[in-house]
Amino acid sequence: MSMDALMAAIARTQNPTVAGLDPKLDFIPEFIKEKAFSEYGETLKGAAKAILEYNKGLIDALCGIVPAVKPQAAYYEMYGPDGVKTLYKTQKYAKEKGLYVITDGKRNDIGTTMEAYAVAHLGKVKVGSNEYCPFLGDALTVNGYLGSDGIMPLINICNEYDKGIFVLAKTSNPSSGELQDRLIDGTPVYETMAGMCEEWGKKLPGKYGYSGVGIVAGATYPEQIAELRAKFPNTFFLIPGYGAQGASAKDIAAAFDKNGLGGIVNSSRGIMCAYKKEGCDERDYAGAAYREAVRMRDEIMSFVGKVVLPE
Amino acid sequence: MSMDALMAAIARTQNPTVAGLDPKLDFIPEFIKEKAFSEYGETLKGAAKAILEYNKGLIDALCGIVPAVKPQAAYYEMYGPDGVKTLYKTQKYAKEKGLYVITDGKRNDIGTTMEAYAVAHLGKVKVGSNEYCPFLGDALTVNGYLGSDGIMPLINICNEYDKGIFVLAKTSNPSSGELQDRLIDGTPVYETMAGMCEEWGKKLPGKYGYSGVGIVAGATYPEQIAELRAKFPNTFFLIPGYGAQGASAKDIAAAFDKNGLGGIVNSSRGIMCAYKKEGCDERDYAGAAYREAVRMRDEIMSFVGKVVLPE
Repeated sequence: MSMDALMAAIARTQNPTVAGLDPKLDFIPEFIKEKAFSEYGETLKGAAKAILEYNKGLIDALCGIVPAVKPQAAYYEMYGPDGVKTLYKTQKYAKEKGLYVITDGKRNDIGTTMEAYAVAHLGKVKVGSNEYCPFLGDALTVNGYLGSDGIMPLINICNEYDKGIFVLAKTSNPSSGELQDRLIDGTPVYETMAGMCEEWGKKLPGKYGYSGVGIVAGATYPEQIAELRAKFPNTFFLIPGYGAQGASAKDIAAAFDKNGLGGIVNSSRGIMCAYKKEGCDERDYAGAAYREAVRMRDEIMSFVGKVVLPE
Repeated sequence: MSMDALMAAIARTQNPTVAGLDPKLDFIPEFIKEKAFSEYGETLKGAAKAILEYNKGLIDALCGIVPAVKPQAAYYEMYGPDGVKTLYKTQKYAKEKGLYVITDGKRNDIGTTMEAYAVAHLGKVKVGSNEYCPFLGDALTVNGYLGSDGIMPLINICNEYDKGIFVLAKTSNPSSGELQDRLIDGTPVYETMAGMCEEWGKKLPGKYGYSGVGIVAGATYPEQIAELRAKFPNTFFLIPGYGAQGASAKDIAAAFDKNGLGGIVNSSRGIMCAYKKEGCDERDYAGAAYREAVRMRDEIMSFVGKVVLPE
């Protein structure tokens, strides 16, 4: 349970990568924006419709090759309530196409409020005698700065609805070390956090050796990835920073175990904006995204070998 | 600029408290839910309409006495995209009533994505040749685990649009110490974070001695509040944990300087659910909220004295 569905999808596709869906308007081909704006005007609703159209094209192109997508909440909130509705519709469309959905929200709060976030993104909410899924993630990224109180409500919901979480440990950005690399009794903050995750994960065991409590570990810090893999063998990694942020496939090889499991590598702009880099007709943006996703898969699989689900 | 508008509002109302708007359906009087459900069914839209109605009643009752409201994003996301629309409408209504709006979202991410959150919650987004405010906060709570990259985009937007942020330092929950109290070179993580905020704040100076980069410091940890106030004289505090979480007015007295400035104390359930505690007719929920807000103001002002804006 928990993160097992993700690992099964990775094994099925033989592809431990996830396509980030971070749809800034600047990334979207003109023909999609023109169509949406002609119908809804240059409004937030028009922007939200353009994003949904763009995302659907990407999902159609990618659903046969990647196991998962990772919509980043910030880029939907940036277009207001209409944008957030497009987040929901994107999740729904991705799930209809069989994709595992990692909602990248980095949510965090104290216990009672974290319960609300857990229900919002991974659970169901009661309204009178009815129940609804407010959003449709299979996993959610979270920030563990508040300690166990902020994580336990998620674990309960993950247990109930068979979901997973990824807690920030070592993030991919240049300044991540300002706090995360500082030493607590000789151990960096990121490793202290990862150790807490390995412990929390014992409450969400998985059948392939990894718990439902993963961590975020940036590809831009390969030594730390190797160290975290060695120390925390039951913790699955979500690995951002590949491609646009500068890391290569070699940098993340250490995240994977002998079965080719252990992590999933994200690329957002690299895939979404492949048509710009390729210089192809913008109407072929989804084709370019597919070609980049294949290239990325092949590059990473050349290090990973074969992905096998252990008995 | 920055947090100055909040301090001016505190001085005008002589009330350094903020009413949290965390509208779980369980908190809402039956008559409001019945009306919304009869019109929209027991749906997420019905829930969102009930929450908006409830919030408007609270805002109408409180706008003459409190300087600010703090909607907690989690409780709106819990009702899906319709709930998030109610967050926007709540912010809009509160601003029309002259209230300062602190959006409690505890957002955090790497630079480029944090830019999107900054635009979403404190700035304006371009759609073609138009500009829109996606959401309507005057300040946003954020999590600084990712370091400067995750804060600088906010500072830029705060400078441009005259807004502020509150960064989590010492949170009010029981397990906050698991990470936040651990020592880095003899200094707790929460103090290290607060020190980073004091530094970041130099880029957002204010005219009353406090910068636009505040911190969250829980009322449940009075010794830490006193210590943080002594060490970081230019950092304004958002203080949760009063009332329902168990802290008293005395616990937070140390947050305030000789002018009665330095912090704003939040109460959410204490005010929202005052009608339940009072046992009055639920149709008087807003009246009960008003009476509790007055009681809280008087209790806190008995320690604070008078709030004066320094020349």
